[in-house]
Formats: sequence, C-alpha cells, structure tokens
Amino acid sequence: MHISRTTKRRVKKIGLPAETLLYTGERIKDGISIKLTAYDEHNFEEHTLKRVDECLPYKLKPTITWININGVHDPVMLEKLGESFGIHRLVIEDLMSIVQRPKCEDFGDYLFVVLKMLSYDEKENKIVPEQISLILGEKFLLSFQEDVKQDVFHLIRSHLRSGKGKIRKMGADYLAYALLDALVDNYFIILEKLGDQIDLLEEELMTRPGKTAMGQLYQLKREHLFLHKAVWPLREVISSLVRRESPLIHESTTPYLRDVYDHVAQAIDSVEIYRDMLTTMLDLYLSSVSNRTNEIMKVLTIIATIFMPLTFLAGVYGMNFRHMPELEWEYGYPLIWTVMIALGVTMGVYVRKKKWI
Amino acid sequence: MHISRTTKRRVKKIGLPAETLLYTGERIKDGISIKLTAYDEHNFEEHTLKRVDECLPYKLKPTITWININGVHDPVMLEKLGESFGIHRLVIEDLMSIVQRPKCEDFGDYLFVVLKMLSYDEKENKIVPEQISLILGEKFLLSFQEDVKQDVFHLIRSHLRSGKGKIRKMGADYLAYALLDALVDNYFIILEKLGDQIDLLEEELMTRPGKTAMGQLYQLKREHLFLHKAVWPLREVISSLVRRESPLIHESTTPYLRDVYDHVAQAIDSVEIYRDMLTTMLDLYLSSVSNRTNEIMKVLTIIATIFMPLTFLAGVYGMNFRHMPELEWEYGYPLIWTVMIALGVTMGVYVRKKKWI
Amino acid sequence: MHISRTTKRRVKKIGLPAETLLYTGERIKDGISIKLTAYDEHNFEEHTLKRVDECLPYKLKPTITWININGVHDPVMLEKLGESFGIHRLVIEDLMSIVQRPKCEDFGDYLFVVLKMLSYDEKENKIVPEQISLILGEKFLLSFQEDVKQDVFHLIRSHLRSGKGKIRKMGADYLAYALLDALVDNYFIILEKLGDQIDLLEEELMTRPGKTAMGQLYQLKREHLFLHKAVWPLREVISSLVRRESPLIHESTTPYLRDVYDHVAQAIDSVEIYRDMLTTMLDLYLSSVSNRTNEIMKVLTIIATIFMPLTFLAGVYGMNFRHMPELEWEYGYPLIWTVMIALGVTMGVYVRKKKWI
Amino acid sequence: MHISRTTKRRVKKIGLPAETLLYTGERIKDGISIKLTAYDEHNFEEHTLKRVDECLPYKLKPTITWININGVHDPVMLEKLGESFGIHRLVIEDLMSIVQRPKCEDFGDYLFVVLKMLSYDEKENKIVPEQISLILGEKFLLSFQEDVKQDVFHLIRSHLRSGKGKIRKMGADYLAYALLDALVDNYFIILEKLGDQIDLLEEELMTRPGKTAMGQLYQLKREHLFLHKAVWPLREVISSLVRRESPLIHESTTPYLRDVYDHVAQAIDSVEIYRDMLTTMLDLYLSSVSNRTNEIMKVLTIIATIFMPLTFLAGVYGMNFRHMPELEWEYGYPLIWTVMIALGVTMGVYVRKKKWI
Amino acid sequence: MHISRTTKRRVKKIGLPAETLLYTGERIKDGISIKLTAYDEHNFEEHTLKRVDECLPYKLKPTITWININGVHDPVMLEKLGESFGIHRLVIEDLMSIVQRPKCEDFGDYLFVVLKMLSYDEKENKIVPEQISLILGEKFLLSFQEDVKQDVFHLIRSHLRSGKGKIRKMGADYLAYALLDALVDNYFIILEKLGDQIDLLEEELMTRPGKTAMGQLYQLKREHLFLHKAVWPLREVISSLVRRESPLIHESTTPYLRDVYDHVAQAIDSVEIYRDMLTTMLDLYLSSVSNRTNEIMKVLTIIATIFMPLTFLAGVYGMNFRHMPELEWEYGYPLIWTVMIALGVTMGVYVRKKKWI
Repeated sequence: MHISRTTKRRVKKIGLPAETLLYTGERIKDGISIKLTAYDEHNFEEHTLKRVDECLPYKLKPTITWININGVHDPVMLEKLGESFGIHRLVIEDLMSIVQRPKCEDFGDYLFVVLKMLSYDEKENKIVPEQISLILGEKFLLSFQEDVKQDVFHLIRSHLRSGKGKIRKMGADYLAYALLDALVDNYFIILEKLGDQIDLLEEELMTRPGKTAMGQLYQLKREHLFLHKAVWPLREVISSLVRRESPLIHESTTPYLRDVYDHVAQAIDSVEIYRDMLTTMLDLYLSSVSNRTNEIMKVLTIIATIFMPLTFLAGVYGMNFRHMPELEWEYGYPLIWTVMIALGVTMGVYVRKKKWI
Repeated sequence: MHISRTTKRRVKKIGLPAETLLYTGERIKDGISIKLTAYDEHNFEEHTLKRVDECLPYKLKPTITWININGVHDPVMLEKLGESFGIHRLVIEDLMSIVQRPKCEDFGDYLFVVLKMLSYDEKENKIVPEQISLILGEKFLLSFQEDVKQDVFHLIRSHLRSGKGKIRKMGADYLAYALLDALVDNYFIILEKLGDQIDLLEEELMTRPGKTAMGQLYQLKREHLFLHKAVWPLREVISSLVRRESPLIHESTTPYLRDVYDHVAQAIDSVEIYRDMLTTMLDLYLSSVSNRTNEIMKVLTIIATIFMPLTFLAGVYGMNFRHMPELEWEYGYPLIWTVMIALGVTMGVYVRKKKWI
Repeated sequence: MHISRTTKRRVKKIGLPAETLLYTGERIKDGISIKLTAYDEHNFEEHTLKRVDECLPYKLKPTITWININGVHDPVMLEKLGESFGIHRLVIEDLMSIVQRPKCEDFGDYLFVVLKMLSYDEKENKIVPEQISLILGEKFLLSFQEDVKQDVFHLIRSHLRSGKGKIRKMGADYLAYALLDALVDNYFIILEKLGDQIDLLEEELMTRPGKTAMGQLYQLKREHLFLHKAVWPLREVISSLVRRESPLIHESTTPYLRDVYDHVAQAIDSVEIYRDMLTTMLDLYLSSVSNRTNEIMKVLTIIATIFMPLTFLAGVYGMNFRHMPELEWEYGYPLIWTVMIALGVTMGVYVRKKKWI
Repeated sequence: MHISRTTKRRVKKIGLPAETLLYTGERIKDGISIKLTAYDEHNFEEHTLKRVDECLPYKLKPTITWININGVHDPVMLEKLGESFGIHRLVIEDLMSIVQRPKCEDFGDYLFVVLKMLSYDEKENKIVPEQISLILGEKFLLSFQEDVKQDVFHLIRSHLRSGKGKIRKMGADYLAYALLDALVDNYFIILEKLGDQIDLLEEELMTRPGKTAMGQLYQLKREHLFLHKAVWPLREVISSLVRRESPLIHESTTPYLRDVYDHVAQAIDSVEIYRDMLTTMLDLYLSSVSNRTNEIMKVLTIIATIFMPLTFLAGVYGMNFRHMPELEWEYGYPLIWTVMIALGVTMGVYVRKKKWI
Repeated sequence: MHISRTTKRRVKKIGLPAETLLYTGERIKDGISIKLTAYDEHNFEEHTLKRVDECLPYKLKPTITWININGVHDPVMLEKLGESFGIHRLVIEDLMSIVQRPKCEDFGDYLFVVLKMLSYDEKENKIVPEQISLILGEKFLLSFQEDVKQDVFHLIRSHLRSGKGKIRKMGADYLAYALLDALVDNYFIILEKLGDQIDLLEEELMTRPGKTAMGQLYQLKREHLFLHKAVWPLREVISSLVRRESPLIHESTTPYLRDVYDHVAQAIDSVEIYRDMLTTMLDLYLSSVSNRTNEIMKVLTIIATIFMPLTFLAGVYGMNFRHMPELEWEYGYPLIWTVMIALGVTMGVYVRKKKWI
C-alpha cells in the first residue's frame, strides 16, 4: 500500500543524526546515469558522464548547463555533486529521501523544487509515483529522477537538440518551466484514466449494481485519495514560483509559469469533481442496494400474502372432524376452489393497488 | 461525458513543445467568420471581413474597434491577428485550446479574459459549454467564440447600431462589460432550467419515489457539478476586473462591472442552494425507500402473524391419530372455527395495538 | 417555489440593454404611496405626497428628510426621484429589480443598501421575502419597500413623531440604523417560528416517527435553506457599514450599528444551530425507521421460528402412510401435543435468550 | 429548549425604540445584591451596599474598586450606575438583555466584556447558562451576574481578602483576568461531565445497542451543540483581549491572559473531539442496528430454508389420492423420515457453508 | 479514556489561585533525575545531578548547557530552577500541568515550547502521550520529560558525546532542533502502526466483514482522533519557530527547522489520508452489511417463492371433500407431481431471470 509505505520509509531514518545521507527507497542495483546538456542559442553539447567530476568544467562556461541524474541512491556521488555546486547538505539529504512532500525552497543562489510524477503501471493496474527534484541556479539546472531506467525528459532534450522554438534562446528558468510543464501534463494522463474508470463504473452501477462494483468504487476512492494528495501541494509549489521575487526567475518566464499554474488549477478542479462524483456514486450504489432489497421483499410479501390464507383454507378442509357439513356438500369442492380463487384474486388486486407490481 | 472529455483534450497536447498552436476541439469544417465593428458617439461602421489584414487600418483610427471572431481553429489566421495587435503567443495558444479554465490575465497593454458560456441543448437534453475569450485594449476589443454558426453577441451589435443608451458614448471597457453581462445572463437560463427540473423531481419524490427518480437525481447532481465548476471561477474573474487598477478599466465602468459581479454572486448562491436541495432530496429518497421497505415488511408480518398459528391449528386437526377425542365431538368443527376466529382477531388486535395498520 | 422564482425573475431582463428600468416582480395594481418626514431636534413635519416633485423643496431645508416609498413598480416616478437626488441609474434599476442580493454600495455622496425583510404568512404557512432598499445621504434617507400595502416602518415614524429618545437629535445615519434594527429584529420572529416548529417535530420524531415527519423535516430544511440564504449576506452588509470610512456614517452611530451587527451574528448562530439540529433529526429519523423495521422483523421471525417446526410436525402426522405406528398409540395424540408444546417453549426460550422480546 | 428560548427573549424587545432598557429574562423577585471591594497592596475594604450612590466616593480613591452586582433586572439602578461611571447606554442595555453573544468591545475609557458561564444542574440534568458581564476601567472593575442567589466569584474575593499571591499588587486588569480564569475553568467541569456521559454511552452502544441509546445520543448531540455555541465565541473574546492595544491591559497581565487563551483553545479542542466521537458513535449505532437486522434475517431464513421443504413433503404424503403407491409401502414411513432428515441436514449444511451460523 | 482524562486533570486545579504550582498527573513515587550536559566544539562534560543548585556554576561558563529533567512533579525543585534561570512562574506552572496543548511562547530572553510525544504501548495496545517541554535560552536549553524512567533523548546525548556531525559546532537552538526532530520522528512510528492496522482491517472488510470489524474500525477512529488532536497544533508550533524573529533562533538553524516543519506537514498529510480512508471503510462496511442482508433475503424469497405454492397445492389435495374427482383418477398422483415439478421449475426460472441466483 502506498500510504503506509511512505511512513515506513520515513521510519528507516529514525535515530540517525541529522543530515545523514540515506536512500529511503528499495535497494536498486542498476547504476546511476548522468546526462549533461550544455547549450545556448548557438551551441549545443550533449554527454553521458561516468563521473561527477566531469561536470565541473561546464560550471565556468557561459552556456546553460543541464545535468540530469537518473537514480538517487548513491550518497557519495550526490555529496560530491552537492559540493561542486554549493548545495546545502539538507538538500542532498532531501533528494535521496524519496518520500518528500512536493515543495519549493529558496536558498538564495538556487531554488530547490521537489515534485511527484505519476505514471500508470498498466501491468499492475496502479498509479506509480516517482520523485523528481530540480535545483535551479542562474546558469545551471540539476534534475534528479528516482527511476534509473526511464528518462521522462527525453522529449525536452530532443527539442533542445533541434534548436526549434525559443527554448535555446531563454535561460535556465525557462528550461525548468519546460520540465515542470512536462511533469504536470503527465497528471492529465492519469486523470483521463481515472475519468474513464469512473465513467465505466458509473455505467455498471446504472445497469447491474453488484458486489464487485463496491470493490471497484473503493479502489477508485483510494486512487483518488492518492491523486488528491499528490496534486494539492503542487499548486503551492508552482504558485510560489509564480510569485517568487527570486532573481532566478526572469520576468519573461513568468507567463509560462502562470500557464503551468493554470494547468495545475484545472487538474485540481478535475480531482475535486471526481471526488464529488465518487461520493455521489456511493450514494447511488447504496440506494440501489436498498431498492433491490425492497424489490425482493415485495416478491416475498406478494407470495406470502396470496398463499398463506389459501394454505390455511386448504388446511381447514383437511381436518378430520367427523361433523364437517361442507365436506359432504355435492359442490363443496368446486365451491372451495371458487372461494380460494376469489381470495387469491382479491389479494392480487390489493397488492396491485399498493403499486407493488 | 463532459469531464473526461476535458482531460482528453488536454492530453492531445502532451509532448509538444510549449507554445505550439493546436486547436483542441473537434475538427470543424465551417469557415471562420470575422465581424468588425468600429464606432464612437457619432460614427458607426460594420463589416464582415474575409482576411485578418483588413483589420489593420482600423487600429489607427480614433474610433473603438470591436473584432468578433467565430471559430478558433485556424492557427495561421489567429497568429497573424496576434501579431497585428501585439498579443503574446501564449494568449493565442490559450484561445485555441478550448479547455481553458475561466481566468483573467493582465498583460499591461491588454487584458485577456477567458470565459465559459453555457447553453442548453434541448434536443440532447444537456448543457453545452462554449469558450468565449476577450482581449481588451485601450481602443479595441477582440472577442472569440468557439462556435462557428451562432453569434451570441448579435443583440449587443444591434444596440450599437441603434446608438441608443450610453454604449456608444463609453469606451471599449464598457463594451467588454456589455459582452460579459450578456454571458452571465445566460447562466440564469440554465439555472432556471435546473431549478425547474429540481422542482419536478421533488414533486415526484414526494408522490411516487422509485428507481427512475434516483437516476434523475444522479443526472441532476452531475449537471449541478458541471455548473458549479463553471460558475465558481467566474467570480474570481469578474472580481479581479472590479478590483483591477489596470488603466484599461475606467472608473465610470466599475459600477457596471460591480453589477455583473452581483449577478455572478447571485448565481453562485443559487448553485449552492441547489446543491443543498439535491443532498436533502437524496436523504428524502433514501428515507422513503426505507419507509416503503418498512411498510412491506409490516404487511408480510401481519399476514404471517395471523395465518401461521391458524395453519398450525388446522394442521393439528388434520393429523390422523386414531384417538383424537376432539374430532369426535359433535360441535368440534364449529368450535375450532370459533377458536381460530378468536385467535385471528387477537392477532389482529395485537398488530393494531403496535400501530402497524 | 422561492428559488426558481428568483432565477425566473432574473431571466425576464435578458437581452435588454443595460440600465433598462424594468420591474421584475408580479404586476401590481395598487398605487405607490410616498411618505415624507422632515425633522430635526425641534421641528417635525409629515406629509403623504402625490407626486415626486413635492419632495424637492425639502432638499434645501436644514432638516433631515426621510422619504419612504411603498411600491417600486413605477419606472417614471423612480427615475424622476433619482434625478432629483442625483442617484446613479444602476441604483434605480437595482431598486426595481426585486431579486437583488443584500448588498451595500458606496457611491461617495450616498450609500445604497439592499436588504431582505422576511415575514411569516400565517395563511399560506410560508416565509415571504420583501426587498427593502435604503439610500442614505448626508441630510436625507430614501427607503423603498416592495409591498404597497404594509408599511413596516410605522413604529419608527411614531417614535419620530413623539420626539422621545435621541432619534431626533441624531443624523440621517441614525435613522438608517433604526430602520436596519427594525428589519433585523424581524428575523428573530422567523427564527422563533422555525425554532418552535423544530421543537414540535423533534417531539413527534421521539414519540411517533412516521412518513409525515419526513415530509415536515424536508419542509423545514427548505425553509432553513431559504433563511440561511437571506441571513448570511446580511452580515457582510452590516459589517461593511460598521467598518465604513464613509463620512456619511458618524462616529456616534457606530456603536449602534455594532449592536445591529451583534444581532445579525446571533441570528447566524441560531441558523447554524438549526442546521445541525435538522441534520441530527434526520439521523434520528433514519435510525428510528431502521429500528422499527428491526422490531417488525423480530415479530415475524419469532412467529416463524415457533410455528414453522410445529406446522411441520402436524403435517407429518397428517400423512396417510398405511404403517405409521405412532398413529395407533393410545396416547399418541396427547404425546404429540406434549412434544409440540415443548418445542414451542424451547423456541420461545431461544428467542428470549437472544433478547428479542 | 435553550435555543428557541434565546430567540423568544430577543423577540420581547421588537418594536421598542432603541436603547430601551428591558430585562429579557424571567421575572425575578429576589433583590439585587451589590458587593463593593476596594483594595491595593496595603488596604482592603469590603462592603455590601444597599444603594448605588454609595459607590461614588470610591471612584476618587487611589485603590482599585471592584463592584460585583448579582441580578441585572433593575433598569433604574443600572442606569444610575452607568451614569456614575460614564458607561454608554447601549452597554447598560446589553447588560440587561441576557441573550447576548459573548463579545468584547472597546469604548476607549473602558472595555465591555460579555461572557457565558455554564453550570450543570444535577436535578434537571441539563446545562444552565448564565450571562456574566465585565466592565473594566483603569481603576475599577464592574462585574454583573444574572443569578441573584449564587456568587461565582466568592473564591476570588477570599483570595483578595487573604492578600496572598500577587493579586493585590496588580491592577484592575489582573482582577479581570482572575474572573475570566474562574469562568473558563467552569467549562472544564461541563466538559468532564459530557466526556463521562460519552464514555458511558459508548460502552452501552458496544454491549447492548438499543432504542434508548439513540435517544441518549441525540440528547448528547444537543448538549454538545449548546456547548459548541458557547465556547467558540469565547476564543474571539479572549484573543481580542490578548491582542488588545488598549492601555487598560498592562503588559504584565498579557501572559496571564494568554494562559486563559490556551485553556479556551484546549476546551475547543475537546469540544471538536467530542463532536467527532458523537458522529462516529452514530455510525456505530446505525451499523449495529443493520447488523442486528441481518442476524434476525438469518435466523428467519434458516428456519424457513429447513422447514418449508419439509412441510411441503409432509403435505404431499397427506394428500388423499387413491393411488399413491408410496403410502402402501411397508417401510414408506421410516423412508420418508429418512428423506426428510437428509433434506434437513443438507439445508443445514448449506446454511453453515454460507457462514450464517 | 484519554480525552475525559484530560479534562479531569484540568478540573483538579479549579478554585486554586492563579500560579499555584500543582502537578496534575498521577502521583509518582520515583525520584526526579537531572542530567546536565555542557559542551562546545572542544569541550564536553556530563553529570547526573542531585540538586538543582549544582547547575548554577554552569550558567556563567561559555559552554552550552543542556539540563534534562525527567519527572515534573516536584514544585519546590522546579521553582528553584525557574528562579535560577529567570523563568516566569506561569511557565513553571505549565511545565507541571501535563495537560497542556502544544504551544510555543516567546518570553524575550527565552522561548518556551510544549510538545506531546506519542509512543505505542504494545502491552496495553494503545497510544501513550507524554508531555515534553523545552526552554531555550541563548546559551542553555532546559528539557522536561513527564516520564521518570525513560530518557527519550539518550541518542542525542550519545551524538553529543561522540562529537561527530555539526551538533557541537552549533548553538543551543540547533540542540533544540535535534530534540524536536527526534520527537517528530516518533510520530512516524505511530503513523506506521496505524497504517498497518488500517491495511489489515481493510483486508478483513474485503474478505469477511463482520461485527468485530466494526468494533475495530471504531477503535481505529478513536486512535485517529487522538493522533489528529496531537499533530495539528504541532504544525503551528514548528511554524512559529521557523518564522520567529527571536534572536534565539539563528539563521543557520532555520533550514533545519524548515525540515522538521516538512516532516510535520507530511505527518498531517498522512493523518488526513487516514481519516478519509477510515470514512471510506465505514461506507464499505455499511454497504457490505446491506449486501449481505440482501443476499439472505434472496435465499428466503427463493425458498418461499418455490415452496409456498407447492405446499398450498399439496394442502388442496389433502382436503377431505367427499367429491373430489381428481383424487379418484388413476394417474392423479403422478399428474399432481408433474404439475408441482412444473410449477417449481417455473418459479426457479422466474427467480433466475430476476438474476437472484
């Protein structure tokens, strides 16, 4: 379960002195991959590095340096990187602790942004969170991805490579915007998935409400809770970037960040709508169960109302009293049938009058 | 479904570089229509344009220029228009992406306002949203409608033509107010429709609550959610216009905008009231289902309470024991009838005492 | 229904140019009545006017002029009045549109206050809203009542006439306070009525919960919603008067307005308490229905538990097998009675052990 | 009922001119008692006064004067007192109207504080509110209690008399703090009572949920609502005293007031916790009723499932067809018993498999 | 019960003069233990003291002095300590009253912080709160623990002793941070425990919902309430430390405190998620009970629908009328069996068509 997992990871660190660098995720065997991209309007370089030291020369160049690191489980390497770029030890610690809440912190020389990317694991049918951290300086951007295998920013790299659009003409803050935009767009894929599932469940509830529907509804509610938890702090983060007086965010980038903010606001709107829909669907489900119980009770009552008096009557004339004049009548038997049919019809009419059929 | 549709449209753009102009609605074949209106207190011109270039001369004239564009699916044309009036590329992108959240942005030289107009499609029995965008400059107003066929502002154009009222004496901001006012008034038509449906459903729930009622209630809840989502951000938009220190909004127009704000506040009041009513109606429905189940159970229990003991008694005297003295009694049969009637009456009295009938 | 009526009235005006003066209430045949009161500490004049023009001379006098108008359906007259006192056209429009939300607007020379008065129509057993508007200037107060027949301010007029208290010594703002106070006091009558109905319903729910109770509960919830909608904006209105730096509100009047504000806060407290009580009563009702169903089920189950096995036993000895030795026993019949009674008692004990009786 | 009583009292005053002094409580026959305490670090005087005039000489003395008045139903006396100490007429009016909401008002020369004291009436088993008002000046404190018989401040008077602690060394504001502290402590007695009742009810719901439990739960909810209404405004009152820049509150007293504020915050915490517990208990109750219905239904269904087929079978062999070969079999009777027992056991096994027993 | 216990403790003090030092916990026999640690970058001293006076010499030394006191039930000792360090009497009073709400107060020379530490008592299976208070001065830190036996800060002491990390290089505020961090980390252990219990209960509800599940759910809700009450005020406390302009908090410590704040925010997120999950689980539970009742009703109705008509039919041919031609038919008996089987099958088909099986 996602949620208890979060607290478990946190628990790992208890009792250690502050600033101990400890990776809180599961052990990963794959190596860390470091991609360096240096560019300005006219130049473009791209390297896959083996060691952190190779970044250092780029710090002095006038180009913008983007270092993307997949895998945050190597304290030695991250510490070295932190020292080279003058990053606070607490930031490095937060990078490695992949249970951070989305947040944005201003350290003067650089901004530290932690975000969650959500992707949908089709095989296991669940939402998978990945922590993405950005460190934005004047001329550099460091990005850290939890997952070693997948690089979620390859599209942006290819935009940079092609040199189209204004991305190469603008600063590191615009690059940060581009990464944020890519991350936020991912939420809409998850939202669409959730929306589709809600629509499907809704149809099922309308046509054949059953036990499974409730299980699915519960599952959707959990997914929704998870999404809700991920999206809300995002708004604060982006909003603090939009409002930020940090000189690291140039005025020309603000409209773009405002655009990302609009997207987040829209995602939150959808999340809220989904919550209301799920709540309403629960009511729909409960009322449909009540309705079905009601229907079943009606059938039972109709059957009992018609046949109990008749069975009683048949029982009466099955008694063995010596003196039962009716039994001797020549037309006793047809008469009792007539009476019983009349009684049955009366009861049927009564039931119909009550609008039960 | 409206809601998943929104996220789907958004998903279309994922992976494209920022500022790509892409129309996110369904493909439209009809051409775009451009209507230009230039006026001041003494002059009035009206033209249907073929090409955007024809607008340019009006930029220099002292009259107020209103350009209304039906259809936002032609990137080339909108780009050209944007360049002529010095509009930011992101604004043009937002114009075309018809899944924007209502918002108001100040770009210094102009204000950019996105709104949703709601209309009721009688044929398909659902609320249809349409995105309307306004760009308000000192001497010009650009308005963009998603729908190619219908011009929602024709009444305002005819007021302009007639020259009555103060509309021709005031600036472009007053014209923007007039358009906003027309849009907001449309909400009241939708609200009235929803109110009528709620009143109808309420009566149905009071007289003959059933399965269909629940379906309708659910439908109304969804419509309400949709309306809620559309109306709330509207308040922020208008409120930011009222408070705006932008020199584009003249002081003389503020009372009018405040009036629009009052209308929006009233619409929100109604939406909130409707929500409470729908919630209460759900409770009413659920309690009525419980009540009916209760009623049915009563009938079943009454029948069983009266006839089970009687049937047992009849069964007793239907036994074939050789020595059953009662069977031989001369008045055995009338006696047992008496006993059974007495028992039945007793049970009936017991039931009545419990207030079940 | 109140609520859809509000939106309907609003819909009447759609498509008309802004500032069209249109009365949105039902057609009224009775004439408008105009009462002018001019007073200061030493003077007191009172007139019932036929035409608006007769007010004009009083504008120049040093006395405070209070013009009360019953009926707001005559655009010509109101327009004339507006012009004489320099009132903005939008204010006159709002006066006539009797679906305004309570609000307070500062126009510099005068304050415009819209309020709702609630009264209880004993005959039709419902709350009747009436829109009251005040225009407060330095030396004058204009008050407008929707209802032509009833003058809700006659008590204040008689206080003025008597000259007792400080009302004649203070300015027009104090008079406005007196009117507001009278209006707010009316809410407590409605609240008392609602409180009485809630107490009655509570008792009914405690002693004999039934179908009607649910209908009444629903009715009370609607009335409560209506009251809630009326009271909340009132707080904003009075609070904005208390805080107002408008020179029209003198410092000596502020404590009085604060007093009115306290009353409104108290009314809101009561409204909130009522909401919680109604919600709790719904829970009480639903649980009592469940309890009753439970009770009924118990009776049914007791009856079935006792008589089904007995009836079966009687059925066994009613079978016609040739060789049924028990039937031949001399004491077979008393024996079977013994068995059946023992069985019945056992079942009864079982039932009692389960605490069903 | 408390709540409707409040509105009823308010209704008494409707129609009277503002500032009419009217006592809104029930008529009280007992006389008003006035206790004057004058003290400083070295002096202490205590008197029970007959007439208000006797206070006047103390106004000029350098000692701190505390006048405590039990009973607020004598307008003449209060008016005189008000005049002597320069109190605004509205304050006197509020003193007498014992339905005030807790509040704190700054009149420059003095602060006016209205509070509710709650005590638990063991005999009638309900919470009894009493209005306590304080008027704090530079050298004097006036306290007003609604109840004539009981003096809730006698402990503080004895502390004053003893001269221990710092109370005699500090100003009138510290005395006010002492009174407030005493009042707030009373809330914890009520809270403890409510907590005990909740614990008791919880145990009852866990062991033997029944009809009475629901009634008690409802009763507790009402008491809770009442407490909630009383405690919340208290926070605002104390908080406004803590923040107050009024020179009447000396800096040395602020930590003490902050302490009272902490107590109130804690009381509010408890009230909120109780609300959540009561809500959860309602859910517990409803689910336990559902569970019991479920249990009962199981028994009914088990009985019916076993005996209905058996009774049918017995009925079959009770038929009087001439040619029923089974009836002639020598072992027909034991055979049918075998079949019936087998059937009964099968049904029993089925039922057990469904986990009903 | 925790909650009523809190109010009970508070009640103990009612009626006593302000600033009376009274320990509000249960009587404790074990002695108080005082541990003094004095350190700077180069020095480290550690002593277990017998008397408070022994602390005094350390006040003048340039090292940082940390005095940790286990046990707060000795007023004399605490008073002496308070006097030595110039602590306000109210602070000492709050230290001893172990029912304080978490808070942070600035007294100029020192900060006073009250916190709750939660630990899980495995034996009694419940959360145990312990009040921890800190007094932070420029060169000293006093920490007070309620529990006499257990020292929760022993790990930090060993970090100090080892001299690793930066803890010995920084001031008393950093030490305070370290203590706070240790306390907050404890919350995650509790949260993990609660998360595990929720996961377990969820599985139980999904597979075999029963009466016990409801009891457990209720228990979890109570624990959650308790946690909620403890965590929320914590945020205010830490946030006020982060924002604090007090010169006692150095700028270099702020990022660390912000880190603690992030942890608290994350804990609050988890608490909120748990609340939503518990609410959803209640819905799941209730709907599963309804579903089971529904299932049981189906079985009952199927049995009754099939066997009631059959039993009636058997009853008819068990009647003793003299003239019942069917009884004489040679194939009457097989015929009636055919009819009965046909009827049974028809009913079975009907039931299956209704999708009950």
